Amino acid sequence: MTTRAEIEAAAARIAPHIRRTPVLHLPAEALGAPCGAALKLETMQVSGSFKARGAFNALLQSPAAAAGVIAASGGNHGAAVAHAAGALGIPAEIYVPAIAAPSKVARIREAGAVVVQGGATYAEAFAASEARRAETGAASVHAYDQPEVLAGQGTAARELEADLPGLTHVLVAVGGGGLIGGTAAWFAGTGTEVVAVEPEGCPTLHTALRAGMPVDAPVGGLAADSLGARRVGSLMFELARREIRESVLVTDEAIRDAQRRLWSACRVVAEPGGAAALAALLSGAWVPPAGARVGVLVCGGNCEPGSVTG
Amino acid sequence: MTTRAEIEAAAARIAPHIRRTPVLHLPAEALGAPCGAALKLETMQVSGSFKARGAFNALLQSPAAAAGVIAASGGNHGAAVAHAAGALGIPAEIYVPAIAAPSKVARIREAGAVVVQGGATYAEAFAASEARRAETGAASVHAYDQPEVLAGQGTAARELEADLPGLTHVLVAVGGGGLIGGTAAWFAGTGTEVVAVEPEGCPTLHTALRAGMPVDAPVGGLAADSLGARRVGSLMFELARREIRESVLVTDEAIRDAQRRLWSACRVVAEPGGAAALAALLSGAWVPPAGARVGVLVCGGNCEPGSVTG
Repeated sequence: MTTRAEIEAAAARIAPHIRRTPVLHLPAEALGAPCGAALKLETMQVSGSFKARGAFNALLQSPAAAAGVIAASGGNHGAAVAHAAGALGIPAEIYVPAIAAPSKVARIREAGAVVVQGGATYAEAFAASEARRAETGAASVHAYDQPEVLAGQGTAARELEADLPGLTHVLVAVGGGGLIGGTAAWFAGTGTEVVAVEPEGCPTLHTALRAGMPVDAPVGGLAADSLGARRVGSLMFELARREIRESVLVTDEAIRDAQRRLWSACRVVAEPGGAAALAALLSGAWVPPAGARVGVLVCGGNCEPGSVTG
Repeated sequence: MTTRAEIEAAAARIAPHIRRTPVLHLPAEALGAPCGAALKLETMQVSGSFKARGAFNALLQSPAAAAGVIAASGGNHGAAVAHAAGALGIPAEIYVPAIAAPSKVARIREAGAVVVQGGATYAEAFAASEARRAETGAASVHAYDQPEVLAGQGTAARELEADLPGLTHVLVAVGGGGLIGGTAAWFAGTGTEVVAVEPEGCPTLHTALRAGMPVDAPVGGLAADSLGARRVGSLMFELARREIRESVLVTDEAIRDAQRRLWSACRVVAEPGGAAALAALLSGAWVPPAGARVGVLVCGGNCEPGSVTG
């Protein structure tokens, strides 16, 4: 299980390569929310999302990386692996399903990776990438279910706590669960509660917590291109079961509204998955107790900028 | 002439009302520039630009403000006065010329001000606003040529220095000169050089420095809606003549490119005037000396978000 010590080590390892992203505190009236919130702006992270943290932490420890790296993702994970590989001088091939968002595929290509259209669905792209990896001996980086990835993602929580100690709650969106797993590992035993937020269209953790284990969940809705994992990772699930007491769902309309309010209040452009955690506070899906001091991970900004006012 | 002590006093006065905006340091390779730069993100300021600093500092000291405030501006100054008046419970009327950008007029209206379409040009709107002010006894806030406004704008430089001491150069865009005047006042005698950047289409300071006094300059080009003052203020001109050694011009194409790179490198949406200072570094219009440690004021984000990739 991921520990604070592993996250500390990851932070030191990846520091030369990632950004310490800003935290912007907005008062309740600026957000139109029942309380203010500190926004950790991972939208400004290299590659446009928090995923660069885990990608660097994994690649910097992988003996196979000298032979290159292969990943399957049409989204933020692909962009992050492509960026990290480029920065470290490692050749990268990213297998992208046909359903991937064009802006994300463009970002992968801009980072210098070879993009391989690898099938209609993510599962087909993943199978094609694994076949190619067996051939080449290249490294792979899992999008969430890998210890180095969880520890890397936990470094965002470490920065947030250092910049703003004493938060009572931190809201985090869940797809495969890498970010919330790392966040829960960091805050374990500190008194800061981690609240899981998922779109109604892809409720992986919600479904898993009810079933008592990771199980397949629907994949759909506005944020599916970043939060649309089929099921949460097994490593994160153990952390979630122990550390996460609240798991809430938000509608696509609440996500759109959170995107609009982020733009209007502070000129932050968040993709749907990046705005989902804040949507829980703004829509009332999660209600802060009196005296709450709330942090929100705004976890990605890889969308068309004009889409946030649409 | 504006002093550091006046800027310190302004900072204390406006602190409850404005945001301490984040500073994001980007390395040379992320920008595609000859050196890295620390970006002070006034795009995230309340009202969407640094102008809120001066507006609050002026209104909080104005005995006439109880009778309301009147300003003429179809841009960031109007949005800032409208926001500050709303926050302080002061009625505001903003006289807007017909040429104003719709997104800025919308921002003024959203802040709760009464918008009065006051003529075809800024000069006509200003004349209409002054007539109305004489009638009502309301306060007015000048867009740049007022001591309280200069001291307020200087608080952005104070924050930048506190967050990142030891900068050798700070790049600042010039319209009427309020921001650069306050910035020059703050850095006077510190060894940090303030570099003035203007679009070729509206070179107010460049023209004034050549003439030896504020004179009319052309108003045109991409950034005219925020930097298109007819001439620099007389208060800032005395500061500029003493403190500013370098004044450079940038093309509209360089400004567009800076907007695109801000989006691509860190998901910052800057309006043309907000990206102009960075454009000087990216385009080579200003060449940093070896060992330069460069700060850039990214001063406004009131544009359509989709426009930054256009």
